[in-house]
Amino acid sequence: MRILFVGDVVGSPGREALEKFLPKLKEKYRPTITIVNGENAASGKGITEKIYRQFLEMGVQAVTMGNHVWRNKDIFEFIDDAKYLVRPANLPENNPGQGMIFIKVNAYEVAIINLQARTFMDSIDNPFEIADRLIAEARKRTPIIFVDFHGEATSEKMAFAWYLDGRVSAVVGTHTHVQTADNRVLPKGTAYITDVGMTGVYDGIIGVDPAPVIHKFLTNLPARFEVPKSGRTQLNGVIIDVDEKTGLSKNIERIYINSNQSLFN
Amino acid sequence: MRILFVGDVVGSPGREALEKFLPKLKEKYRPTITIVNGENAASGKGITEKIYRQFLEMGVQAVTMGNHVWRNKDIFEFIDDAKYLVRPANLPENNPGQGMIFIKVNAYEVAIINLQARTFMDSIDNPFEIADRLIAEARKRTPIIFVDFHGEATSEKMAFAWYLDGRVSAVVGTHTHVQTADNRVLPKGTAYITDVGMTGVYDGIIGVDPAPVIHKFLTNLPARFEVPKSGRTQLNGVIIDVDEKTGLSKNIERIYINSNQSLFN
Amino acid sequence: MRILFVGDVVGSPGREALEKFLPKLKEKYRPTITIVNGENAASGKGITEKIYRQFLEMGVQAVTMGNHVWRNKDIFEFIDDAKYLVRPANLPENNPGQGMIFIKVNAYEVAIINLQARTFMDSIDNPFEIADRLIAEARKRTPIIFVDFHGEATSEKMAFAWYLDGRVSAVVGTHTHVQTADNRVLPKGTAYITDVGMTGVYDGIIGVDPAPVIHKFLTNLPARFEVPKSGRTQLNGVIIDVDEKTGLSKNIERIYINSNQSLFN
Amino acid sequence: MRILFVGDVVGSPGREALEKFLPKLKEKYRPTITIVNGENAASGKGITEKIYRQFLEMGVQAVTMGNHVWRNKDIFEFIDDAKYLVRPANLPENNPGQGMIFIKVNAYEVAIINLQARTFMDSIDNPFEIADRLIAEARKRTPIIFVDFHGEATSEKMAFAWYLDGRVSAVVGTHTHVQTADNRVLPKGTAYITDVGMTGVYDGIIGVDPAPVIHKFLTNLPARFEVPKSGRTQLNGVIIDVDEKTGLSKNIERIYINSNQSLFN
Ligand SMILES: [Fe+2]
Ligand SMILES: [Fe+2]
Ligand SMILES: [Fe+2]
Ligand SMILES: [Fe+2]
Ligand SMILES: [Fe+2]
Ligand SMILES: [Fe+2]
Ligand SMILES: [Fe+2]
Ligand SMILES: [Fe+2]
Repeated sequence: MRILFVGDVVGSPGREALEKFLPKLKEKYRPTITIVNGENAASGKGITEKIYRQFLEMGVQAVTMGNHVWRNKDIFEFIDDAKYLVRPANLPENNPGQGMIFIKVNAYEVAIINLQARTFMDSIDNPFEIADRLIAEARKRTPIIFVDFHGEATSEKMAFAWYLDGRVSAVVGTHTHVQTADNRVLPKGTAYITDVGMTGVYDGIIGVDPAPVIHKFLTNLPARFEVPKSGRTQLNGVIIDVDEKTGLSKNIERIYINSNQSLFN
Repeated sequence: MRILFVGDVVGSPGREALEKFLPKLKEKYRPTITIVNGENAASGKGITEKIYRQFLEMGVQAVTMGNHVWRNKDIFEFIDDAKYLVRPANLPENNPGQGMIFIKVNAYEVAIINLQARTFMDSIDNPFEIADRLIAEARKRTPIIFVDFHGEATSEKMAFAWYLDGRVSAVVGTHTHVQTADNRVLPKGTAYITDVGMTGVYDGIIGVDPAPVIHKFLTNLPARFEVPKSGRTQLNGVIIDVDEKTGLSKNIERIYINSNQSLFN
Repeated sequence: MRILFVGDVVGSPGREALEKFLPKLKEKYRPTITIVNGENAASGKGITEKIYRQFLEMGVQAVTMGNHVWRNKDIFEFIDDAKYLVRPANLPENNPGQGMIFIKVNAYEVAIINLQARTFMDSIDNPFEIADRLIAEARKRTPIIFVDFHGEATSEKMAFAWYLDGRVSAVVGTHTHVQTADNRVLPKGTAYITDVGMTGVYDGIIGVDPAPVIHKFLTNLPARFEVPKSGRTQLNGVIIDVDEKTGLSKNIERIYINSNQSLFN
Repeated sequence: MRILFVGDVVGSPGREALEKFLPKLKEKYRPTITIVNGENAASGKGITEKIYRQFLEMGVQAVTMGNHVWRNKDIFEFIDDAKYLVRPANLPENNPGQGMIFIKVNAYEVAIINLQARTFMDSIDNPFEIADRLIAEARKRTPIIFVDFHGEATSEKMAFAWYLDGRVSAVVGTHTHVQTADNRVLPKGTAYITDVGMTGVYDGIIGVDPAPVIHKFLTNLPARFEVPKSGRTQLNGVIIDVDEKTGLSKNIERIYINSNQSLFN
């Protein structure tokens, strides 16, 4: 089976880029399942029910999140009923929402796990430990396990992937909003990339207007970062080919669409 | 003119990979100047005089550093005489060494600046401010200015590059040891990549043996990270084409050599 | 001469406590000059012009700030004319306001410097370096130099005080909102305390209502911290006796007023 | 019953100060149980079996630790047999040692818990959650529960104490090495102090020689911090009076002995 995963969709330019490119990507790659990281979908911060439903209508089967999961308060109203939304599983147990979901596609079931790293990020439960538990639980139902590991530090993301190598289908990193070029299948069969990147404005700084970000670094004064309303866009993603029987991966390919690169280079 | 820059060379596998691949890269790309980040060249931590000289003998014209610059104490013995070594310019003024050097190549002069970011890193002087001063100084001699911006956070690295766009030939990020796929020439002519990546073991975690790194994340116990003595290697770099008259760039291309990818794909 | 310094005044309970206790403190200690840290005076975040003027009317001669200096936007409107307000001197040079002021009291002049530490805080310019420059400048006018060093880590605050020992009259720490018991005159004559503490609600967590703070630590969910409108209050301060000729201190005494301790214990 | 707790003993000056002052403290206060934080007892980093045994011989009934627990490797050899040593209970479960111990004194049993905070510190398990579990376990045996909460940020330490108020006898903070002046019994009967402080050299920076610490802040160069071999010393501690039936506290008093203050001020 083939998994299409799209990196952090940032604000309305991100949603528009997804809407524009997704049909073409589906036509070209014919993914069995499409997963999108939506932690920045609403004005760059969090997600709303409306946007979540738009994603499903666009043909997305699951939405993963990250450290911005609670930034838009709308989520507390709909997360309990959002069967296709998965938020970091290692947040405190008292948090709403779920950290692992199962999606039926054809004859198969795919477990989708979201976990958050800790280096340079919030102190939450150990993602390595929680992964062990979730994988044990998932494997009772399916060997096809996809993990969105949302984190900052390359060392933690790589360590996490090597730790899970051979036990899950894929570990794809998110959060830095910059795609890395290290996509590979690890020795025991887990597809890996340190960061998938982001989907949104191309002439921005991780999805927002450059001017206030630069101003902040120059002055340290309070700043308000804004997602531009218009401009060139990009879509970052990966395509992963998984053996349905073993749950291991055969290939992981990067997708980096922007105004400098045509879709099918 | 053409600049070849090679990302953080980690320990002996990194040096061996450099020695093995550099002649081939030179033959293929015919760079006018070759620059290497050497902050991890000695067992993963710092650099020694012997290694610095080996780099020069291999045909490297300049060595940049980063936050690990002082990790091997040997550097305090030779840095004052190391004309081709450049360490972060925004370290305290009382530190030994230089933050900008000028290299003559053919009829041209190239200014090479090393700066260190601050997000998730040491509190040192503002790299944006220091960059302004150094660029003003450099432009009196040459429009060809190459900056190795050593940093962790993608937002700071991108903000820095957008801030310098049109004023320097290139801003290449280092430090994360994972190559990013966002190489581009910014609108006003500065070549940019968030991180060039690293040169060293391929089956490692940012250049070191995976086992102790994983153990650390599982136990939080003290660990000793080691550069493996053998195994498959990789070389990460970029090739940048600069207009000598304007100092602006026309192109930046990624180089990612490893056992899965032949040199000339 | 005698300096009365009052630690971070937090919100309206802090202002009320100051108004209530200051006349009594003045009567008891007869300070030559009264200085107050006002970085949390407006609802716990920043300061307004109205509050700044209230402080002066209460008989405060100078107001120091800290990392919350820009939290209330009102400050950008009046800081240029606020002669008795001093904000961290090691913020970027392009910031408004001043980092050192001189106050005339009787026949003497007192230099008041505000600096911000860096450990676990924003990366700004080195406070040790900036202190050297400011002290050299101040000593041309007066040997009486008072420094509010706003910082988190005990090691940095102590290192700073030992570095300045004998060169300034006093280094008083602020920011943690908890008074420390280590007040002393250092060997060369600089009065020191790691943190003066805060002025505001007594049954709170560093000046705010405990419930949302505890909820945040339990859930990691977004929380809104509020300064309670009523309840028991406390005032934290220090009294420092300085020799006007040498600028060195003879004594530093703690003031910790709250509902468990009468003023004159 | 009366608990004497002594703050972080740093290196040989700390051990000597303890040896010198403990008999006098015991004579004056007649504590039912004496507890000492030993995380810096061996040259400022960790503890050895020899030092642990010396503490017991001096009349200490329990030794608590903190983030430096594993700094001296000797501990891995003896911790499994060290019945009176307690290390942070919220370290990963795979770590050796225990996070709660029970000490018999006369007819009573005292539960001693060590927990580590997370703000500005390592990402480990949530101390608030683990505290809930341990307290439930402890209360089956005894209402007398003493917690050494090892942490940096005042907000987290206070939040922790308010959260446990009425459920434990005392929460005493450690780690900053500077005693705070906010000792109090919280409304529901838990004795609290943000930080007990340290025991060791008086003319130092949190227990070590000032010169290299200052040098580090001035240069950012690698530095080696050393515990001085001689010089004036200090002892910081608290005395807590607990009602044996309810486990609640009636009083908490600070002890701050140094060359400026006699023992019995
Ligand atoms: Fe994101
Ligand atoms: Fe994120
Ligand atoms: Fe490096
Ligand atoms: Fe680095
Ligand atoms: Fe404050
Ligand atoms: Fe503050
Ligand atoms: Fe300690
Ligand atoms: Fe500690």
